[in-house]
This record gives sequence, structure tokens and C-alpha cells, in this order.
Amino acid sequence: MSLKFEIFSKHKKSRTGLLRTAHGNIQTPAFMPVGTRGTVKGILPEIVEQTGAEILLGNTYHLMLKPGAERVAHLGGLHKMMNWNKPILTDSGGFQVMSLSSLRKITEDGVLFNSHIDGSKHMLSPETSTNIQYLLDSNITMAFDECSQYPISHEDAEISMELTNRWADRSRIAFVKRYGYGQFGIIQGSVYPDLRKKSADYITKIGFDGFAIGGLAVGEGQEVMFNVLDYLPDFMPENKPRYLMGVGKPSDIIGAVKRGVDMFDCVIPTRSGRNGQAFTKNGTINIRNSKYINVQNPIEHDCECIACTNYSMAYIHYLVKVGEMLGAILMTIHNLTYYQNLMKRIRNYIDEGRDFDFQT
Amino acid sequence: MSLKFEIFSKHKKSRTGLLRTAHGNIQTPAFMPVGTRGTVKGILPEIVEQTGAEILLGNTYHLMLKPGAERVAHLGGLHKMMNWNKPILTDSGGFQVMSLSSLRKITEDGVLFNSHIDGSKHMLSPETSTNIQYLLDSNITMAFDECSQYPISHEDAEISMELTNRWADRSRIAFVKRYGYGQFGIIQGSVYPDLRKKSADYITKIGFDGFAIGGLAVGEGQEVMFNVLDYLPDFMPENKPRYLMGVGKPSDIIGAVKRGVDMFDCVIPTRSGRNGQAFTKNGTINIRNSKYINVQNPIEHDCECIACTNYSMAYIHYLVKVGEMLGAILMTIHNLTYYQNLMKRIRNYIDEGRDFDFQT
Repeated sequence: MSLKFEIFSKHKKSRTGLLRTAHGNIQTPAFMPVGTRGTVKGILPEIVEQTGAEILLGNTYHLMLKPGAERVAHLGGLHKMMNWNKPILTDSGGFQVMSLSSLRKITEDGVLFNSHIDGSKHMLSPETSTNIQYLLDSNITMAFDECSQYPISHEDAEISMELTNRWADRSRIAFVKRYGYGQFGIIQGSVYPDLRKKSADYITKIGFDGFAIGGLAVGEGQEVMFNVLDYLPDFMPENKPRYLMGVGKPSDIIGAVKRGVDMFDCVIPTRSGRNGQAFTKNGTINIRNSKYINVQNPIEHDCECIACTNYSMAYIHYLVKVGEMLGAILMTIHNLTYYQNLMKRIRNYIDEGRDFDFQT
Repeated sequence: MSLKFEIFSKHKKSRTGLLRTAHGNIQTPAFMPVGTRGTVKGILPEIVEQTGAEILLGNTYHLMLKPGAERVAHLGGLHKMMNWNKPILTDSGGFQVMSLSSLRKITEDGVLFNSHIDGSKHMLSPETSTNIQYLLDSNITMAFDECSQYPISHEDAEISMELTNRWADRSRIAFVKRYGYGQFGIIQGSVYPDLRKKSADYITKIGFDGFAIGGLAVGEGQEVMFNVLDYLPDFMPENKPRYLMGVGKPSDIIGAVKRGVDMFDCVIPTRSGRNGQAFTKNGTINIRNSKYINVQNPIEHDCECIACTNYSMAYIHYLVKVGEMLGAILMTIHNLTYYQNLMKRIRNYIDEGRDFDFQT
């Protein structure tokens, strides 16, 4: 058995469940902090764990360039290298090769590109992406896909979706099955219901261990995204985890869980934390605002994170304003904790059969 | 009783002891990590504590400008603001006002200067410096002094030293005595034995709780510094702690302890850690060197710090090279641990009556 997924309880379209991997279990709905370059920026992994995170996301594109997949393998894989012994999901590199690299050439075979770091030439294909994720020792490998831009014509979306389908076949063949490790397929088709249906039918027939929704959170806005999520999860297998890639703000996550999604990843809590934005149950605040200069209270009174337990808003305001690393660190810890607490709250509501009565 | 200092054992001129403060005890010889702006750069205080540090140094000059001494007091003092519940020593601001600020005007009264941050005008004097350190809630307040430059003529060094003496009188008067809090006087006189003797006589007669050696580690080199340390501690009271300000490299510390010094502070372990220099029992290494790119070993095999327990040199090399915060964090943790272990080793040797047989 590669990965095991059990559903615990359902409420309308939402579900709670447990995804079992070789490195431990993940309670769903789950939020995955992003550790792009083999580290959640500024945070020791034991502190990431303390926020409640049960799985991290690593970026194949960044890691293949530096330190290199072979080097990560030489160092015992991503878990061992970065001292994170819980599950790791890696993306396929498909999205970032399109957004970060220069001089891309897309062919049936894959994507030829120049590194954004030093211009060196690299190839990503279903086979190389899958093999790199094997070398990284990723618990959840993502199939190599082409993420369609937004907006895109129906014709171009269909061509792109069909390429993704063929690449999904090749990704599945390239995947080495192991106990406690699995592979997710990615459904494309932009905002076109007929294409999403075709893509879902094709990808689910291949038989992955979970299914991801790609091509959303690319600028279409929440309403358009929710329109797709209103029907797409119904095309996906009931008994496999559903992962909405690159999402999102708390309200995006809540809306997506309501529509049947189980997994999420996003840089928002970490990146916006470094920029001074803190998430609270009453919405976001900008800690750089001078109104916090003398505030002795923590960011959130009932938050049990390191930042809220031990530090005033005034101190964090000061650290962020003068550019001390500890400011970014405390903001990141708070935001990651906020996101994990949000997921916990969501899971509790589903288990208790209650509608979500919170928006953030 | 303000501060209590007990000497445990002596070996030749070296001594071990215990300095008791309202926030806990400090084993001497002691090394104080520097938390310039109310944070040891990049490190949560619980992790600073884990390195073995028993006291931190804060910088009056930086803190008076931002967040401001009154604000720190409003936030409960430096311990509470930065969540460090062990002892804190603050410098007087005298050294940094000379090295960092612009448009200084030194008078008998004190130093008028413009902030290096925004050009705003400020005054530091024996009275304001002592009062700021009171507002910061510093366990060990330093007298306000003029740190002489190097080299300096005998005549100028004498004029400066005499100003420092008069400022020491005023600093002592301005100091509010409290249980578990104390004040150290600073001995100046550059490299001139007669001036050092005069300064020591004058400052010790005022009757501080400890005595610092100023005007060294300002470019004179280790040999010249050791020449001063060969005689100066003999002019200082036996039963009070002796603090060599701004020192230093491991070999500086070892040489100074041999000559009877008890306390040290320096940015070297933190600053050089952020720049990729790691301290080891076999000397310093530059983690950025490409020879570490594939090294699976930790920086030091027998070091029990977070960095050496959990991470390879190759991973830290990679993090530092790509500029990930975690690289600077792990290097800082290792170096601070190295320094604290060095002090522990020094104390053990003294307690056992053995000569130091190590140089770094």
C-alpha cells in the first residue's frame, strides 16, 4: 500500500480524514507550510512542528538547481537534510519553471529552461521531475503538469490540458512505488467545466493516490475559483485526498473545504509574516502600523504560539521596523500557528457536523 | 546588598566565581552574548539560554534611540520586553556614541550627538546614561566613560582618563541602588601603566560593584593588550568581578583569564557566524568554502548544539550560500555554544588547578 487515506466524518461536502505516510499521519483538511529551498524561512523545524504542522511542501524547481537532487540524496534525502521527520510533499516544478525561469522551450518531451540563478540549462519532463522527487525522498510526488495561465482561451486550455494528461501517464510510469509513499495526479482545464470533466476523467482513470486541482489561484479571483470548486470535487474520487494547489487566504481555504477539498499549501502565512502582516480571528493587521508602538498586548490573546505567549505587539512592531530577524521569525511563527489553528477549528466543526460560522 | 560575588577557586592569577543578581547567578569566567537592539540577532531567547549563556549584554546607545528607554520601561523593562529572564548588563553608550553617531560635541557635561538613524539630537551624560540603564532595568549598569582611541598620546590619554574619573563620580551618584542590581566602574588610561594605575586607584576608591577594563580591543593587537593585562588586574580589587569590555577571540579570552579577568562580551561569535565563520576546537572554518559542499559531518562531532546535533556541514554551507536565514541562525547557535563551552572548559581547568593546554 502506498498511502492510506481514511475519511473520519463528513458534513455536507466537507470531510475530515487521515492520510498515512511512511513519515507519519496527516489530519485533513490540512495546511502545508512551504519550505521552498529546504527550509521554512527563518524557522527551525522543531518550531514549525510546534505550530502544529504535520506536513511541509518542498519545491522541486528550487531544490534541483540548489543544492541539487543528487546532493540532497547524498545527504540522506530532504527529511534528513533539513531535520524534518514528518511527511513532505514536493511539487513537480512545472509551475515554477513557467514563472521563474527564462528561455523556456516547451515540447512534447518536457520543458527546456535556463536557471534563474546562473542561466545554466536544465530539462524538466515527467520522467526527470518524478526522478528528482524520488531523489528528494518526497512522501507525496506530484505528477508533472503544465499549469495553464489565466485567462486562457478554451482552445488553448484544451491543448494544454491534453499535454498534461499525456505527461500524467508518463509521470505515473516513472514513479517508483514504495510503502508509505505516493503520487498525486493534477487536474487542469482552467475555468471550463467540460475541460475539467475531461481532465478529471482521464487523470482519475490513471489511478493516483490523490488528486490535485491545478490552474487555480493564478489570478482568477475567489469567485471564479469557487465556481470551479462548486462542481470539480464531484468529478474526483470520494476516497482519495483532494489537494488545491497554492491556496490561499483563510477565506479561500474555508470556502474550498466547504466544497470538498482536503489539502492546501501557500506562502501567504510565511511571506506576509515577514512583511509584517499578521493573521488574527478578527482579520489581518499590519504590525508596522505606528498604532502598535506602545501596545503591551500580544497579537492575539488566546493564541498559544511562542510570539503571543511571550512578546508584546510593541516589541514585534519595533523588531520588524528596525529589520531585526527576530521580528520576521515571530511573525512567521504566529501566522503558521494561526493557519494550523484554523485547520483544527475547521476539522472540529466538520466532526461536530456544524456549518462554519467564521470567515477568516 | 546590590550584587554578590564569591570566588570559588584560584589557579595562579585565574579565578572562578559566582556573581549573584536579582535575575539569577552568573558563573565566572563568563562570556556575554551581545543583544545590541534587544535581541541576539536571529535567535529566540530560549535558544540563547540553551547555548549555556547566563547573561546578555544590551547596548544603551541603540536602545535609547529605538525603541527608546521610556518605551522599554513601559513594556516592563528589557528582560520582560525581550523575554530574557536571566541577568542583563548594559554598556553606558559611551563607546558607541563615539563610533556610530555624527556631530558629536564632548563637554564636561557629556556628549551631544546626532542619531545615526535619523539625525535627531541627543545628549548622553553620566546622569542620562545611568538613568537610561535604570529604565532598561539592567542588572549591571556601566559608568559613563570616554573610551580613548588607539593610539593616543600620554597627554591626551591622561586628559581623557581624568574626564572619565569625574564622570565615574557623577555616574555613581546617579545610580539607584537596588537589591540584586549593581554598577561597574570603568578603568581607562590606554597603554600607559602610570595612567592605568591612577585610573584604577581613583575608580576603585569610588566603590563600584565590579570593575571594567576599557580602552582595549580598539586596534592595539593582542600583544599590547596582554601587556596591559599583565599588570592592570593587580590594581583592581580581588573580591570584585573584573570585566574586559568588547573581547574577543577565543585566544584573547584565554589569555585574559590567565591574567585574572572574569567577564567578557563580544559580537564575534554572532557576527562572524552570520558571515559564515564557525569556531571549532581546531580553529575557525569558513562554511562558505566549497570543500564543504558534500560533507555529511556536523561542524563539530562532539558539540551538542542544535546545529551540530541535527545538520550536516553541506546543508549549512548550502543555506549560507543561498542566503537563507536558517544558515545564519544555525551558525550563530553553534558559535554561541562554542563560546559557552570554552568558558565551561576554562572554569573546569581553574577549578582543577590545571594550566590551560588549549589555545582556541
